[in-house]
Amino acid sequence: MEKFNASISYDQRMWDADIRGSKAYVKALEKAKLVTADEMTSILNGMDQISEEWNKGIFVIKPEDEDIHTANERRLKELIGAPAGKLHTGRSRNDQVVTDMRLWLRDAISSLREAALQLLSTMVERAAIEIDVLFPGYTHMQRAQPIRWSHWILSHAVALSRDVERLQEINKRVNVLPLGSGALAGTPFDIDRNLLCKELGFTSISLNSMDATSQRDFVLEFLFWASLCLTHLSKMAEDLLLYSTKEYSFVTLSDAYSTGSSLMPQKKNADSLELIRSKAGRIFGQCTGFIMTMKGLPSCYNKDLQEDKQAMFDCFDTLHAVLQVTTGVMYTLKINPSVMEGALSPDMLATDLAYYLVKKGVPFREAHGISGKAVFTAESRNIALNQLTVEDLSSVSPHFGEDVAAVWDYRSSVEQYSAPGGTAKSSVLAQIEHLRNWIKTQSQ
Amino acid sequence: MEKFNASISYDQRMWDADIRGSKAYVKALEKAKLVTADEMTSILNGMDQISEEWNKGIFVIKPEDEDIHTANERRLKELIGAPAGKLHTGRSRNDQVVTDMRLWLRDAISSLREAALQLLSTMVERAAIEIDVLFPGYTHMQRAQPIRWSHWILSHAVALSRDVERLQEINKRVNVLPLGSGALAGTPFDIDRNLLCKELGFTSISLNSMDATSQRDFVLEFLFWASLCLTHLSKMAEDLLLYSTKEYSFVTLSDAYSTGSSLMPQKKNADSLELIRSKAGRIFGQCTGFIMTMKGLPSCYNKDLQEDKQAMFDCFDTLHAVLQVTTGVMYTLKINPSVMEGALSPDMLATDLAYYLVKKGVPFREAHGISGKAVFTAESRNIALNQLTVEDLSSVSPHFGEDVAAVWDYRSSVEQYSAPGGTAKSSVLAQIEHLRNWIKTQSQ
Amino acid sequence: MEKFNASISYDQRMWDADIRGSKAYVKALEKAKLVTADEMTSILNGMDQISEEWNKGIFVIKPEDEDIHTANERRLKELIGAPAGKLHTGRSRNDQVVTDMRLWLRDAISSLREAALQLLSTMVERAAIEIDVLFPGYTHMQRAQPIRWSHWILSHAVALSRDVERLQEINKRVNVLPLGSGALAGTPFDIDRNLLCKELGFTSISLNSMDATSQRDFVLEFLFWASLCLTHLSKMAEDLLLYSTKEYSFVTLSDAYSTGSSLMPQKKNADSLELIRSKAGRIFGQCTGFIMTMKGLPSCYNKDLQEDKQAMFDCFDTLHAVLQVTTGVMYTLKINPSVMEGALSPDMLATDLAYYLVKKGVPFREAHGISGKAVFTAESRNIALNQLTVEDLSSVSPHFGEDVAAVWDYRSSVEQYSAPGGTAKSSVLAQIEHLRNWIKTQSQ
Amino acid sequence: MEKFNASISYDQRMWDADIRGSKAYVKALEKAKLVTADEMTSILNGMDQISEEWNKGIFVIKPEDEDIHTANERRLKELIGAPAGKLHTGRSRNDQVVTDMRLWLRDAISSLREAALQLLSTMVERAAIEIDVLFPGYTHMQRAQPIRWSHWILSHAVALSRDVERLQEINKRVNVLPLGSGALAGTPFDIDRNLLCKELGFTSISLNSMDATSQRDFVLEFLFWASLCLTHLSKMAEDLLLYSTKEYSFVTLSDAYSTGSSLMPQKKNADSLELIRSKAGRIFGQCTGFIMTMKGLPSCYNKDLQEDKQAMFDCFDTLHAVLQVTTGVMYTLKINPSVMEGALSPDMLATDLAYYLVKKGVPFREAHGISGKAVFTAESRNIALNQLTVEDLSSVSPHFGEDVAAVWDYRSSVEQYSAPGGTAKSSVLAQIEHLRNWIKTQSQ
Repeated sequence: MEKFNASISYDQRMWDADIRGSKAYVKALEKAKLVTADEMTSILNGMDQISEEWNKGIFVIKPEDEDIHTANERRLKELIGAPAGKLHTGRSRNDQVVTDMRLWLRDAISSLREAALQLLSTMVERAAIEIDVLFPGYTHMQRAQPIRWSHWILSHAVALSRDVERLQEINKRVNVLPLGSGALAGTPFDIDRNLLCKELGFTSISLNSMDATSQRDFVLEFLFWASLCLTHLSKMAEDLLLYSTKEYSFVTLSDAYSTGSSLMPQKKNADSLELIRSKAGRIFGQCTGFIMTMKGLPSCYNKDLQEDKQAMFDCFDTLHAVLQVTTGVMYTLKINPSVMEGALSPDMLATDLAYYLVKKGVPFREAHGISGKAVFTAESRNIALNQLTVEDLSSVSPHFGEDVAAVWDYRSSVEQYSAPGGTAKSSVLAQIEHLRNWIKTQSQ
Repeated sequence: MEKFNASISYDQRMWDADIRGSKAYVKALEKAKLVTADEMTSILNGMDQISEEWNKGIFVIKPEDEDIHTANERRLKELIGAPAGKLHTGRSRNDQVVTDMRLWLRDAISSLREAALQLLSTMVERAAIEIDVLFPGYTHMQRAQPIRWSHWILSHAVALSRDVERLQEINKRVNVLPLGSGALAGTPFDIDRNLLCKELGFTSISLNSMDATSQRDFVLEFLFWASLCLTHLSKMAEDLLLYSTKEYSFVTLSDAYSTGSSLMPQKKNADSLELIRSKAGRIFGQCTGFIMTMKGLPSCYNKDLQEDKQAMFDCFDTLHAVLQVTTGVMYTLKINPSVMEGALSPDMLATDLAYYLVKKGVPFREAHGISGKAVFTAESRNIALNQLTVEDLSSVSPHFGEDVAAVWDYRSSVEQYSAPGGTAKSSVLAQIEHLRNWIKTQSQ
Repeated sequence: MEKFNASISYDQRMWDADIRGSKAYVKALEKAKLVTADEMTSILNGMDQISEEWNKGIFVIKPEDEDIHTANERRLKELIGAPAGKLHTGRSRNDQVVTDMRLWLRDAISSLREAALQLLSTMVERAAIEIDVLFPGYTHMQRAQPIRWSHWILSHAVALSRDVERLQEINKRVNVLPLGSGALAGTPFDIDRNLLCKELGFTSISLNSMDATSQRDFVLEFLFWASLCLTHLSKMAEDLLLYSTKEYSFVTLSDAYSTGSSLMPQKKNADSLELIRSKAGRIFGQCTGFIMTMKGLPSCYNKDLQEDKQAMFDCFDTLHAVLQVTTGVMYTLKINPSVMEGALSPDMLATDLAYYLVKKGVPFREAHGISGKAVFTAESRNIALNQLTVEDLSSVSPHFGEDVAAVWDYRSSVEQYSAPGGTAKSSVLAQIEHLRNWIKTQSQ
Repeated sequence: MEKFNASISYDQRMWDADIRGSKAYVKALEKAKLVTADEMTSILNGMDQISEEWNKGIFVIKPEDEDIHTANERRLKELIGAPAGKLHTGRSRNDQVVTDMRLWLRDAISSLREAALQLLSTMVERAAIEIDVLFPGYTHMQRAQPIRWSHWILSHAVALSRDVERLQEINKRVNVLPLGSGALAGTPFDIDRNLLCKELGFTSISLNSMDATSQRDFVLEFLFWASLCLTHLSKMAEDLLLYSTKEYSFVTLSDAYSTGSSLMPQKKNADSLELIRSKAGRIFGQCTGFIMTMKGLPSCYNKDLQEDKQAMFDCFDTLHAVLQVTTGVMYTLKINPSVMEGALSPDMLATDLAYYLVKKGVPFREAHGISGKAVFTAESRNIALNQLTVEDLSSVSPHFGEDVAAVWDYRSSVEQYSAPGGTAKSSVLAQIEHLRNWIKTQSQ
């Protein structure tokens, strides 16, 4: 039962946050005259020494250390004796643990944000370099229209930039001080919560002590945020897995991100991409697990909440690794532009053929039908769409003239899509510029 | 297969958004000289007539109407003939459907926000009225410390206010125009996306056409938002279910929110609360379903995305009903103050007893131990903690004096918790004031 | 609140089960002397008349009909008067509703089973016909080894056959009579539960009345069963989506299972497969929703259980449609054998090259390395693996001789894999035979 | 990337299964003449030595050991040299890993089964001992009817017995040999799969090599099985948490399964029960994570499958601990029979009052209404239902007579519920007998 109950095996990871929280708390105790200046100094020094022990990896966890809070306080007592007994005055593990978690998560979010911006930057700069490469855009996994490769890169970058923005919003709600909420009712002492807030770098203090000690919205928000971000990355990974098949051969992963087979000597597997794709499930599983645990719990602290930490840690570790690996993949990926452009086919310009008619005044629905007939004619003759002669086309619609030849140029085709967000060069460059500026703002 | 493929049975609900979208779009077509002013007028009038048909419930869906978009355009053609064929120029169902969804969801969010603020207001005003009622605060479902009933109400109100704030953030991301993104590559015509943005009341336009037509972040965010909000309400419902048992008897639900039994004549069941509690599961199920569907899909539109709408609609309907029912429950609930205060017991002041010693200079850890011994002594003698005499207490610790009698007053006890967020009257009043102001700002 | 509470809008679907349950129950009442033979006859006739009204679609639901049980009993009273009031003697809605659900689900399972066997049969017979077609087997989405197309078909059939077996196990647990459990405590009358069991075709009776009225294991099992089955079908759909891309071009969907694009005239999208792929998410969402709702509920009936029915119905409807559509897809699919065999490449025989060496006594690890070197040599020279001369190979390993030429035959290659479960013709035929026999047993 | 890719940190746990698998495999190699008898002996001895190293905790994992399979084979090579290179002949990590997992899980299932039977036995024997204790049965968390405490215990035992039965069914599907399936296509050597099956104690061999190497149904089934079992235990825990509140005071947890508070000296929290309640979420999270990972994957092995192991391990560890803790809780729990019986109140016999009338020939619906009126009368006079005089009752219905007094006896009341599954003593004893016999059968 003790083993079942204890959390020290994983919550020791918050040792630093726990120490920082206690150091701030003892200052508030001193201000409230609950410890003397000497006792405060003694506690602060003791805490610094414990910090050093953790840092050096020499802190010894004892069997009775149920969690990181009891471990640190137990050690403090060993180091400084009696005054250690005053540290927990007016504090409960309920407000202590959630303070620690918020401090820890704030740092974790900062790391993730940096890693995401690094990935974004890699993607945007790659898009800038490879802007002239065309390849097929797909819908329903079928070739749809010619697009720029950079347009594809940016479609994923834009999703990731939303993730970074959302993360900032979550951070705002993480960065709230719960300390001073006691077990549920608040603190009966003159604990200056604003002092605590300032000392610990929080931006606001919690409004209601019952809520503060038992809400885990910030954990759930973080878990779902990561699930959504990983779902975006699973989409990019899936695209790249397709593009790196023999059948597509658009991209080649660097060896560092591929592995061989224990059986088949010729195999080069894109393990990195498969792992990236798989993690959305893992992390959304953590989100599911914890929200299901929270469902229907009564108010205030219940031990069920202890499930919060492993989920939070795994989420950070997983996402941090994924962002770094994805950055590596995107940095080292080789593209095969000739294969990519070679995969473009005239039928992908059937929409342009319809638009050619629209420009001659044919209502789009009719033009769509005529173009469809042209496609059908070409298919039945087993020739490419652009091999239909003007005569062939004229028999489908009288609006076709010699100028239809201009339709069959992929580069001209993409250049038409110059409205904001489109795949024309100017439009893609504008997206790059926008994201570069945005990254700059974010990195400040 | 046709039945399997069609979405008209549920997406018809977006008829109004679809018409609004088309009306704006035809204006952009006119500006781009793709329809004449007359054609535009004809289309606008046709659309108004269709709108009226839907409003009156006389719009007739035909078997070939696969979805709301084809239904409206088919009807337009019947009404105005040829020009109808120009409406879809440069537009794809891919950008059309997501425009409709965003318009629809924006309105839905507005309704939910209003309903949530109504509930919040009901709770806050109730807290103001019943501020003098004390009752037991629980942690781990065990009686912990005396608190104000209003402190409990506000603990849930504070969570709900975070939900409303989050909803505004989501709304910001819902309110982005995708129209003009075509199927995936953008639009090759002079479609003025800023005009569309303004006409439809969006606050910005999408950055990348591939992302715009296939991302459903806004749906997933909405589904998770609702799951979290309902998890909060499941917590409140669970508390009230406990408080309305015979064993607690703290509250009595009004008859309108209770039901009887088909077998047991004496039963009065809190069905409303049980239903509120149950819905967190239902909606998180929708969230799970749709994120699992999205996982690992390749870029751009895939038919899998069609799962987005039923989830979104059910989420709105469920939450809207829950918010209204919860408002009704909270408005009509009767509390039984004498039972609530009668449930307070002296052992709930054991912490105060420890704090009494702390104030006399005893380190908290030691004081906690002494108070624990006092509790044990009382329990062994089968008397209440406050029935221990000063002599009894002195034998546990010499620091106890006659003044210990002052500890045994529940009202004085709660008044100590006057730090921000605590359960003292001043502190609870500050919370009420804060929320009243916040609601005012939100309602503007 | 009434609308929030009522279930008639969806549970009316169980009208037939409800009537069957009541007809059996009145027989038990008669045996227990709680109704007379005449009253029983009157109730049975009334129930038959109600059944006819439902069948003809003329049953009128009234505003006070909260659920199907009250609707049917209300109508019975209108039809036969006083004796109707005796029908509910000793019965509760708690045991009534779960009896209805079990009866309904038993029929639903029977339909699903039939639909799944139909699909299986279609697949197995297709495998028999196309047994001589070879194509690339993939792992990690990379070409791995040549296999039979039928081996691929059967890999999915085998998974589906496990689903059918699992469904039978679930059915065993569905087919248990709860009637006679009352609200929670059982029945105080001489209700012959074995008579009920026999009348309603159940195979056993529930063991404990509290459990019987509130457990929904059979619903959860069914939801998860369907999730797993749909996950299998999502895998097959994903394969077929890949195979139907332009890049693979292995298969062509029939037009009945494809759709066009509102924008791009040349598009033919495999919507059917995308929808099949998407439904695993939807149904696992239902499973998640309902298990989360059940988590942490106290014993016996709670209104939260009302979430069971919509989940169950949607699960059945979805899976039933998916199985039928998948059968259609598999029945009408065209394969392109020349493209499939054309996609085989000599490097896919690198394992065979290693095995050639193994047969000459080279330890596999070494042989694997040598074969890898050969692959590398061919790649650096930009030639196919089988274009390496014996001299080239000999320089990599002295074990290569003229007989290595025999390695480069795809048909011989697959014929080696003749152990049970392998891709050799004999082995695939054995799988077909096994499944044919199994289907025969199942269909009896 | 290497760290991201490697699984040795957790899959080392399968060292024993991996060694057992290899020992069987080398015997099949010898039979197929792919190794000599001497080589086989050498490999077997080497494997035994590796086994001993793991057992003694002295096996040294090296940086290049990506997973348990490479680690063991690397060590084998160090120990016996060249012949080690022959062990992997015709085998792939794809069939090796899933063989290991099945061997591991088979043992895990056996442990869980034993732990579940231990819990069941504890519950059933407790039910036998405490059969004469009555207490309130609840529906909708409201007092419903008097029941036996043992009836409550057995309601949970019955659910758990279904779990054990389901586990056996899963075990049947776990216990299937995949070895000999190679990477995907099977094995080209004379590997005797039936020999492997027998050596490793499997009951059948896999039917299709592609399915065998990439299906993880057995993991998903196990994860969901555990989720359902834990949902049952969460229900029992919730009941006991309610019963152990001050308000109910029906049960007292032993100190070994309770913990104190860092702040409140009087607190005794039922942490064990809260943890039990919480784990349903955790494990269903694992199930969600892994099924979402599997959704939409193409055929055959993909690296995404690597997510299977941590989920499986955590599921076993969690459930094993929960079953043991629950057994401890149920073994040491103290009940407070006087409080339990004291919580029965006459209104809980309102149904019996209605049945009294039914026995006098009043149709149940009418009787239910009359009893309801009696309840209302008593409530308005603020007296207990059994304090109504015969005159009072007669004024509600003329059918009441002096014999109504017999209704007000709780023990007589429960004795009426003697149909199978009911709460009468005979019926509860029959349940005990049934479960005792069932446990005996299961334990054989």
